[in-house]
Amino acid sequence: MQQRSEETRRTILDTAEELFIQQGYTATGVAEICEAAGVSKGAFYHHFESKQAVFLVIMEDRLSYINQAMQQVLDDQREVPDALMYLASLGKMIFLAGEKHLSILMEFWEQARHDPESWKAAGAPYERYQQFLALIIRKGVEEGSLREVNPEDVSRLIIAVATGLMLQGVMDKEGEAWGQTVEKYMEILIEGLRRRPQ
Amino acid sequence: MQQRSEETRRTILDTAEELFIQQGYTATGVAEICEAAGVSKGAFYHHFESKQAVFLVIMEDRLSYINQAMQQVLDDQREVPDALMYLASLGKMIFLAGEKHLSILMEFWEQARHDPESWKAAGAPYERYQQFLALIIRKGVEEGSLREVNPEDVSRLIIAVATGLMLQGVMDKEGEAWGQTVEKYMEILIEGLRRRPQ
Repeated sequence: MQQRSEETRRTILDTAEELFIQQGYTATGVAEICEAAGVSKGAFYHHFESKQAVFLVIMEDRLSYINQAMQQVLDDQREVPDALMYLASLGKMIFLAGEKHLSILMEFWEQARHDPESWKAAGAPYERYQQFLALIIRKGVEEGSLREVNPEDVSRLIIAVATGLMLQGVMDKEGEAWGQTVEKYMEILIEGLRRRPQ
Repeated sequence: MQQRSEETRRTILDTAEELFIQQGYTATGVAEICEAAGVSKGAFYHHFESKQAVFLVIMEDRLSYINQAMQQVLDDQREVPDALMYLASLGKMIFLAGEKHLSILMEFWEQARHDPESWKAAGAPYERYQQFLALIIRKGVEEGSLREVNPEDVSRLIIAVATGLMLQGVMDKEGEAWGQTVEKYMEILIEGLRRRPQ
């Protein structure tokens, strides 16, 4: 029973993701997800409060390896500039793999903007990355590999770069291959954070 | 006659801007702009091809002093890191003055995303800033105030930061006062671009 329930949940998530990618977040309704997934509305609402809740779980799933990578980077022995470059290379992977997801994310943001509750929920992973990055930067300052910067500020700066590149990637499909350049830009930024020889 | 035509154009622009701010870009139609401005549709279409064209002119107007500031910064004798900090302080002003415009810009982007023609038009000022910044960075590398970076890449990095902060500013209204922090983040970035002592 437990297992079947988990299967239903998984089916809803996979079907919704497929529909979001095919036709967009706004254009996809709960009724349509239920029909395509072959589940009742009752089953849907047993597992999820709303379409937005489904979307947030999909994003969490897709981003979960970033959480793991960040934890790993905090724990291991790499110097922080190298750790940051490693995270940037993961960022590049997200861009290359997730172009379609980015587009949905953008749509979701536009909707969430008018709804404080869902914006708050959408902002949670964001906030977590910000705090993670601040821990990593702090470690870098303490170990002496980074110059004396405010970890909170630098963390928000990095998030701003990532957000900006994401937006450009979504918008400017015919422009530069943004995914390819994430690493390059992060390298400039990180190089500028390295401790200078006294 | 020439003067009256210019007045009509100005009235349309001011009225449209007011309506966009009050009720959003999407919710405002050409008919409504005409009615509120007290002009005929004929007069409207004599001056503007579409609602999008009106919006683009409003944005150009609002941003025109950035163009002037950039040209000035290229011409004057300031060292480039100081020039960039000056531009960042202008950026801060935009955030503080233009919160409502940013919100409309976001709506416009979301629409333009589905329409290659208007996205291209919307991207034009963007492209111009990018080229301007690249010229400034190049000057900094040549005068020896900045380290040896690729001007194009750094220029795109700065634009990504600005875009990311803008998006965060639009989205996270209850969060940090983003306008206040633009300068702080740019300072970290610019400090990292300074030439290091050999």
